[in-house]
Amino acid sequence: MSNPTVQPVLIVGSVAFDQITTPTAESGRVLGGSATYASIAASYLAPVNLVGVVGDDFGEANINRLRAHPIDLEGLQIDPTGGTFFWSGIYGENFASRETTDTQLNVFEHFEPTLPEAYRATPYVLLGNIHPDLQHRVLDQVVGQPFVAADTMNLWINISLDPLVRLLPRIDLLVVNDDESRMLTGESNLILAGRKLREAGPQIVVIKKGEHGSLLFHADGLFAFPAYPVTRVEDPTGAGDSYLGALVGSLAAQNDTGFGALKRAIVRATATASLTVESFSCDRLEEAGDDTIAARCAELQHLVAVD
Amino acid sequence: MSNPTVQPVLIVGSVAFDQITTPTAESGRVLGGSATYASIAASYLAPVNLVGVVGDDFGEANINRLRAHPIDLEGLQIDPTGGTFFWSGIYGENFASRETTDTQLNVFEHFEPTLPEAYRATPYVLLGNIHPDLQHRVLDQVVGQPFVAADTMNLWINISLDPLVRLLPRIDLLVVNDDESRMLTGESNLILAGRKLREAGPQIVVIKKGEHGSLLFHADGLFAFPAYPVTRVEDPTGAGDSYLGALVGSLAAQNDTGFGALKRAIVRATATASLTVESFSCDRLEEAGDDTIAARCAELQHLVAVD
Repeated sequence: MSNPTVQPVLIVGSVAFDQITTPTAESGRVLGGSATYASIAASYLAPVNLVGVVGDDFGEANINRLRAHPIDLEGLQIDPTGGTFFWSGIYGENFASRETTDTQLNVFEHFEPTLPEAYRATPYVLLGNIHPDLQHRVLDQVVGQPFVAADTMNLWINISLDPLVRLLPRIDLLVVNDDESRMLTGESNLILAGRKLREAGPQIVVIKKGEHGSLLFHADGLFAFPAYPVTRVEDPTGAGDSYLGALVGSLAAQNDTGFGALKRAIVRATATASLTVESFSCDRLEEAGDDTIAARCAELQHLVAVD
Repeated sequence: MSNPTVQPVLIVGSVAFDQITTPTAESGRVLGGSATYASIAASYLAPVNLVGVVGDDFGEANINRLRAHPIDLEGLQIDPTGGTFFWSGIYGENFASRETTDTQLNVFEHFEPTLPEAYRATPYVLLGNIHPDLQHRVLDQVVGQPFVAADTMNLWINISLDPLVRLLPRIDLLVVNDDESRMLTGESNLILAGRKLREAGPQIVVIKKGEHGSLLFHADGLFAFPAYPVTRVEDPTGAGDSYLGALVGSLAAQNDTGFGALKRAIVRATATASLTVESFSCDRLEEAGDDTIAARCAELQHLVAVD
């Protein structure tokens, strides 16, 4: 990175194969996983240290696909005892619903996130959507006072609420979607839900609302930003992971986590997530390039400009 | 009005009594109706010429309540043959649903909107949510080339689609909510729905998304704006009417219907609608005053400011 202030980002999450059926297409078996999307999105902005696990079937082509970006793979375990985490699902009409048709944890079942020595002091940490116990074990290994962002999902809220609640005071930024914010707080009003989440630990909360954009809750105030006006959704899988990856990548690139830096990071995250939904897997996210993302960021700023 | 550019607004719609039950309160019989909310909201910005009908039970107190604002009542018919239009409804948990429990059309059943001579050349026309045949009959009486904005509802889309579709090429601005935009176009993607509505006639389309704000579709581009962060909803009835009244009132006050004027009008409409939901009837909308609305407009601008 030419900018000396740019900091690396540690990203922990799933690296997986997905097989997705939408109302109009079928993906086949494609590269997916929360850490995959987040790492590629973040790597546009900052070098990434990836921690995850894949199985004996992951293949050199996929390793090389990740390596094509500034993503360090020392922390990617290759476990020869089984296959890579596999998920398949079907989206309903207009992507209004999603049904899981198969989940094979494979080598992910006994995944123990281990940080290589060189990763421990990474100043920006992104805990992707994995079991909260694993998110805790990552934080147990870091040294210094990194900025920590975390994602979660309805599954963990339902079956592992206690470790998730205990995680909240250990993180700086929680990024959840609207349904998750309501599940976690019991508040249907998103403004009140965001405030309650901040009281539960993280100083900064972002609530993602899909096509309706996102809300940032911060000690300095509230920020509301629309989604990019996407008209051709092929597959929304990974949009949230891409959003979070670009968000933390942008903070690391600015080496600033203040209110202004967070707002700029949200613009970037919004633009980046809009690319992910336009193709299966990370195809569009990878091929888009800096110029396309920068153009969408400019479009987004224009979209809300009153004068 | 001290500003010589401010133009009057003709508003046609229902003037009614509502009786509303929410999860936490009961309104009793209160002043309502699409023209009532729209007129009070618009009257903060521009003088209003009101066309509607009330019955023998409307009462001098309610007449005076309207007259306390710059609302001309020459066009308000008082029909001694029956009662005022009455609607009652129950909102479900979190205002996620609304059920009509009683509708008494009363004198509204045979309402014939008649424009007093002095109203016919009003340069801004707001067709509130009434039967599309009545909206046509209003336009048949205007002279000159006024700027015409119209609202509608799911009922008319279901039972009077043909006159509604024929209305669209006669108006300049259509303001609908997200569900109505989907019903009218068959498009689930709101960006595509807005574009299709523009192709159906109106040069300008606004899609309201409740707590998620609104979208403006215009030849010069797209504008997205969040809702005001309301945390205490008492009764959402009339929010859409207040939004439209403030929107058209703001255009009339600016005497400008360009893209920039529309954006400023949407900020004003958003702030105004946020007041309506904080009380039953028009109570909060009436008592708030210019300073409160201006403060909310400033807050809204701040809410989306990136730098």
